[in-house]
Amino acid sequence: MKIAETDFQAWMGSVQSRMETALASFLPAAHVAPARLHEAMRYATLEGGKRVRPLLAFAAGELSEAPRERLEAVSAAVEMIHAYSLVHDDMPCMDDDVLRRGKPTVHVEYDEATALLVGDALQSLAFQIITEGKLADRAERQLEMAHLLAAAAGSRGMAGGQQIDLDATGKTLTVPELEFMHIHKTGALIRAAVLLGFLCGDQAAGEERVKLDRYAKAVGLAFQVVDDVLDHDASTATLGKTAGKDSKQGKPTYVSILGIAAARSLAGELRAQAHAALDGLGGRAARLAQLADFIVLRKF
Amino acid sequence: MKIAETDFQAWMGSVQSRMETALASFLPAAHVAPARLHEAMRYATLEGGKRVRPLLAFAAGELSEAPRERLEAVSAAVEMIHAYSLVHDDMPCMDDDVLRRGKPTVHVEYDEATALLVGDALQSLAFQIITEGKLADRAERQLEMAHLLAAAAGSRGMAGGQQIDLDATGKTLTVPELEFMHIHKTGALIRAAVLLGFLCGDQAAGEERVKLDRYAKAVGLAFQVVDDVLDHDASTATLGKTAGKDSKQGKPTYVSILGIAAARSLAGELRAQAHAALDGLGGRAARLAQLADFIVLRKF
Repeated sequence: MKIAETDFQAWMGSVQSRMETALASFLPAAHVAPARLHEAMRYATLEGGKRVRPLLAFAAGELSEAPRERLEAVSAAVEMIHAYSLVHDDMPCMDDDVLRRGKPTVHVEYDEATALLVGDALQSLAFQIITEGKLADRAERQLEMAHLLAAAAGSRGMAGGQQIDLDATGKTLTVPELEFMHIHKTGALIRAAVLLGFLCGDQAAGEERVKLDRYAKAVGLAFQVVDDVLDHDASTATLGKTAGKDSKQGKPTYVSILGIAAARSLAGELRAQAHAALDGLGGRAARLAQLADFIVLRKF
Repeated sequence: MKIAETDFQAWMGSVQSRMETALASFLPAAHVAPARLHEAMRYATLEGGKRVRPLLAFAAGELSEAPRERLEAVSAAVEMIHAYSLVHDDMPCMDDDVLRRGKPTVHVEYDEATALLVGDALQSLAFQIITEGKLADRAERQLEMAHLLAAAAGSRGMAGGQQIDLDATGKTLTVPELEFMHIHKTGALIRAAVLLGFLCGDQAAGEERVKLDRYAKAVGLAFQVVDDVLDHDASTATLGKTAGKDSKQGKPTYVSILGIAAARSLAGELRAQAHAALDGLGGRAARLAQLADFIVLRKF
């Protein structure tokens, strides 16, 4: 990578470990009744993933001088939504997957009914966290943030993207149709992560928000394109989830539609768009720029 | 019934029809993409149920002079949570039910994956609605309301109650254990409905809230006891859902634990408790008193 590796790696590691602590404390303890549900919620959320959304929120928070505690809370809310979507997405009636983040999926480790409730309860917990305490300079702003998260999660955001994905299985999509699907399925929550990290700071100004949103759109799409490329290249062991699954299930991917070379070059193009969106934001946007590189250049 | 029947029936009918209009307008139109998801969300929510929770919210709103538009919004949010829980609860991995409100359940009419997403998206929509516009005298109050709804829906509320229910299947419970289950499974959302209806009014005072909460607890439990009694007595045609199902599935009910006579008398006792809780609130609590009667004396 062409970035100040050591410094970036250290920052990333510190956000990740901070988030692990924050998520563990936001989740009900495993012994609290109903214990099986709480244990499974912790299983689904802790010790897993790169925490890309929290990383984006923390990086965006540098632009608005967001306090660390607020960033932890909004990132935890976003991550609960993300974790719930993975649990439901892995269920037999959806992708029917048995492996996630190198561990058995929730319905395999527990059972289907518990997996259903884990997802449902994680979603509620996300909204509990984002409406708790003081997470913005004004309560009106915090309400707007909760609303933004709900819209990103719902039928015109992430859940809608899942439906578009279901409807697309076995079909040939055009590139714009594929993009429409991913803007919903993964893009909406990534945009929410960036905006929430920014909005929870007291110095959140309007014109920076527009640039950030442009950045988030490019990064969100890049994330998916790279996922498809890695899914095409990698083995199950490296990914920690079943590899090559989308193409086997007849799901359209950037690789299946564009071919591997064009998919790689699209990822590079989106990386450039993300950097361009940050023009004029100066040094406070350095982490965001590094994250765009990390998302495109990652190998897992 | 010992109440001014005509007047109460007219009030109930007007709230129900107002809510049908409100729900229809809060739900995305059936032609908006992804159309299949939006159509199924409308199928799951519209033309169904007695709207007990909205009725309770509207009745509680009379104590705090809550404006009708705010009552519609908070009631719609609560009803979306309720509707989502029914959709998920009916799925094969949970109660595996094919009939709800006289119609095929969502996973039967559509498919399981869509039913899963319908529930997920309805929950998001609930939080979108309750964080939108101005629903209380201050934004801080509205945040508190959204938080209250999230807590009522989550692992220490309704979703937790579902897990307790799962864990209890095939077991013998004591009456306090059964009560613990229902306080979560149905009671939490009923309490939320009463409190949200009250809190959205500008005249929501502290001491009235305590009384209302006591009322809501009694009514919530009464609702469940009566459900068990009706489930024991009634036919599928009258209920609009599969009758006698809980006992067939080995789920403990008030009737299976107490016997039918004691269950009936418990319902009467809870009705008296609900009325007692309203003492001192005067004529503004008349609808709440009538609703307690309706909930206990209903035949469907």
